[in-house]
Amino acid sequence: MDKKNIRFTLEFDGTDFNGYQIQDNKRTVQGVIEESLLSLTGEKIRVRGCSRTDSGVHARNYILNFYTDSTIPPEKFLYPMNNILPEDIRIKKSEEVPMDFDSRKNAAAKIYSYRFLNSKVEPVIGRQYISNEKIPLDIEKMKEAVEYFKGEHDFRAFMSQGSEVKGTVRTIYSAELTEKDNLIIITLKGNSFLYNMVRIIAGTLIFIGQGTRTKDDILTALSAGDRSKAGKVAPAKCLTLESVIY
Amino acid sequence: MDKKNIRFTLEFDGTDFNGYQIQDNKRTVQGVIEESLLSLTGEKIRVRGCSRTDSGVHARNYILNFYTDSTIPPEKFLYPMNNILPEDIRIKKSEEVPMDFDSRKNAAAKIYSYRFLNSKVEPVIGRQYISNEKIPLDIEKMKEAVEYFKGEHDFRAFMSQGSEVKGTVRTIYSAELTEKDNLIIITLKGNSFLYNMVRIIAGTLIFIGQGTRTKDDILTALSAGDRSKAGKVAPAKCLTLESVIY
Repeated sequence: MDKKNIRFTLEFDGTDFNGYQIQDNKRTVQGVIEESLLSLTGEKIRVRGCSRTDSGVHARNYILNFYTDSTIPPEKFLYPMNNILPEDIRIKKSEEVPMDFDSRKNAAAKIYSYRFLNSKVEPVIGRQYISNEKIPLDIEKMKEAVEYFKGEHDFRAFMSQGSEVKGTVRTIYSAELTEKDNLIIITLKGNSFLYNMVRIIAGTLIFIGQGTRTKDDILTALSAGDRSKAGKVAPAKCLTLESVIY
Repeated sequence: MDKKNIRFTLEFDGTDFNGYQIQDNKRTVQGVIEESLLSLTGEKIRVRGCSRTDSGVHARNYILNFYTDSTIPPEKFLYPMNNILPEDIRIKKSEEVPMDFDSRKNAAAKIYSYRFLNSKVEPVIGRQYISNEKIPLDIEKMKEAVEYFKGEHDFRAFMSQGSEVKGTVRTIYSAELTEKDNLIIITLKGNSFLYNMVRIIAGTLIFIGQGTRTKDDILTALSAGDRSKAGKVAPAKCLTLESVIY
């Protein structure tokens, strides 16, 4: 029988997952999807995801693909899979793609959003998805600073150790910071992101807003690769992979 | 010592509460607030809330008031109370009000929002606060229909049994329905609301969108008080008390 290459678009709530990538004895997105595919098709399928995500990080449109001998029509995986899957993960779209489609290698760009409150009081409604910065932030300074991340840069100062990577040059196509009712949303679109890169950019912008880092610190971090000029790794639960562009 | 009248503005996530009003052996917003006030002040305080809320209903700006002999300055209740309170309830503002202020009787208007998705796939991120209607809805018809609720009407067809009430005439000052990315938000501002009134209006609009009720059914329900012409009681978790106007 001819194998098919199937692509899923997933939404997941990362709160109770140890990230995307499969690990022994841990609840992961990949693990739950592969178990559900086994139960649906009887095949031991290895799925290929568009990126790793940290424990606690969410995704609104995560892309993965896999090869299968199943006779289930490509677009018909959606309902039986969603019946099996737990409520913190759903398949939003299922479709056949060319055999050479690779959700990771073919990803041309990814869009991430990072959300947090700037309030004296902790968030309640939606607190699963936002943290709070109690110190009042200078939003205008943060809006100016976010511009500095645009373009092609060596982002090694905005990377955590612990993941193998060949190069550290990445391109940010767009970078935006909005604020409404004390809720701050940072949106970054880039060709690819280093380990913890969005969370460190968010942490740096928070330090800029607090006045403990300056725009010059960003320039130095980018030009000299000095991690100490960047900011903290901001909390994972605020981060959502919004979409992947192919 | 002179008693003071203190007003709290609360945010709470109704998911794990059996509504606002205190009940024996059940976790309620009023119960948790009164326990926390006892632990902070040593006083057995009875608080007065702006309205009952059903089990599962949320509030972004709920108002209550209470009388106390405490020497804690009115605006200083916020931090020690928030240290005691569980994470699904927070005091956003604490202030002294005139002795005759009554959070229920003096409420001139309340604003409620009702949120749900219209999608083939259940929501994941934020599913604690939205339900889903799978049947495709005619949004334009719903937008036309929401207008019919504006003004002074006898809303007895839009009320569940089980709560004593003197009259059933209420005034809706504004009624709006918006849709974006399949998320529908109904916002109602009224002088007062009957038991389950917002949830039945939401359920009626859903039936209108599905084509199982017409705008004429709303007119009949309003003029003849015919409950059968209205819709279902839509789920509680989608409802949020946004604010109270005095």
